[in-house]
Amino acid sequence: MKTLAEAFHHTLQDIYYAEQALTKALPKMAEAASNADFKALVNKHLAETKEQIALLEKVFASIGEKASGVKCDAIDGLIKETDGIIKDATGVALDACLIAAAQAVEHYEIARYGTLREWAKVLGHTEAHDLLSQILDMEKAANSKLTGLAVTSVNMAKKAA
Amino acid sequence: MKTLAEAFHHTLQDIYYAEQALTKALPKMAEAASNADFKALVNKHLAETKEQIALLEKVFASIGEKASGVKCDAIDGLIKETDGIIKDATGVALDACLIAAAQAVEHYEIARYGTLREWAKVLGHTEAHDLLSQILDMEKAANSKLTGLAVTSVNMAKKAA
Repeated sequence: MKTLAEAFHHTLQDIYYAEQALTKALPKMAEAASNADFKALVNKHLAETKEQIALLEKVFASIGEKASGVKCDAIDGLIKETDGIIKDATGVALDACLIAAAQAVEHYEIARYGTLREWAKVLGHTEAHDLLSQILDMEKAANSKLTGLAVTSVNMAKKAA
Repeated sequence: MKTLAEAFHHTLQDIYYAEQALTKALPKMAEAASNADFKALVNKHLAETKEQIALLEKVFASIGEKASGVKCDAIDGLIKETDGIIKDATGVALDACLIAAAQAVEHYEIARYGTLREWAKVLGHTEAHDLLSQILDMEKAANSKLTGLAVTSVNMAKKAA
């Protein structure tokens, strides 16, 4: 990679891989959690993730490239963290840590789409910019819901203790 | 891990490990980059990271625990991503991807400290809550500076192209 156009294409492949990896990780998180609101939110976000994959395919098409993924170490690490939580935690800790891990994933995606959207603008890729903005807004909305849920769930756990 | 108190202690160990890992990763990023403003920002953030480690030690002390780290897969993945960039990218792509990777790290830390601060509040750890809020503010400020730099650096690269 030398140019911004190459960095853009590579980072797009990176997030395309990440979203696909999440379609496998999210059902495991929903299954492991006991908080019903969190389960519902994760399942809703799984459907959104599939939509985002379709939107990313449009981004690739808009710059004349075929959609493809490249291994993304960051999302692999974030998903490995959720696997560790499912293995090591139970009860209140399991739900609290899974919600926190989902927030960390959303924050990662917000960082990535923020970057990609800015690069698309600089590169003059108007359609890609608009599509990436649409995905960024979805991720921000998901993160806001998780933040609300994180606060209510730990407070509920405190009352129950 | 079963309780929120155990989740809090574990996640504190997790971010303590992460900050220590960053004291090794940040100098490599500063050395590899060519953008002088980014180099300066990373070096400043290295000094802040060391301060944050000292603040985390106060958090451990405030809950009667000894400071210790546990392997954090998420930060390992994020750092592995920066190593890949340093290996595979040059020129404009190297700086743009390194700035973006630094933003992804900041976003991860913002997610973690946001969670830890909230948990500290629920657990009644007032001193820990205040210390974690202080670190969270430092991370948010670092992320804002990176965002500004990300925008100016790619626009400069575009003009030079």
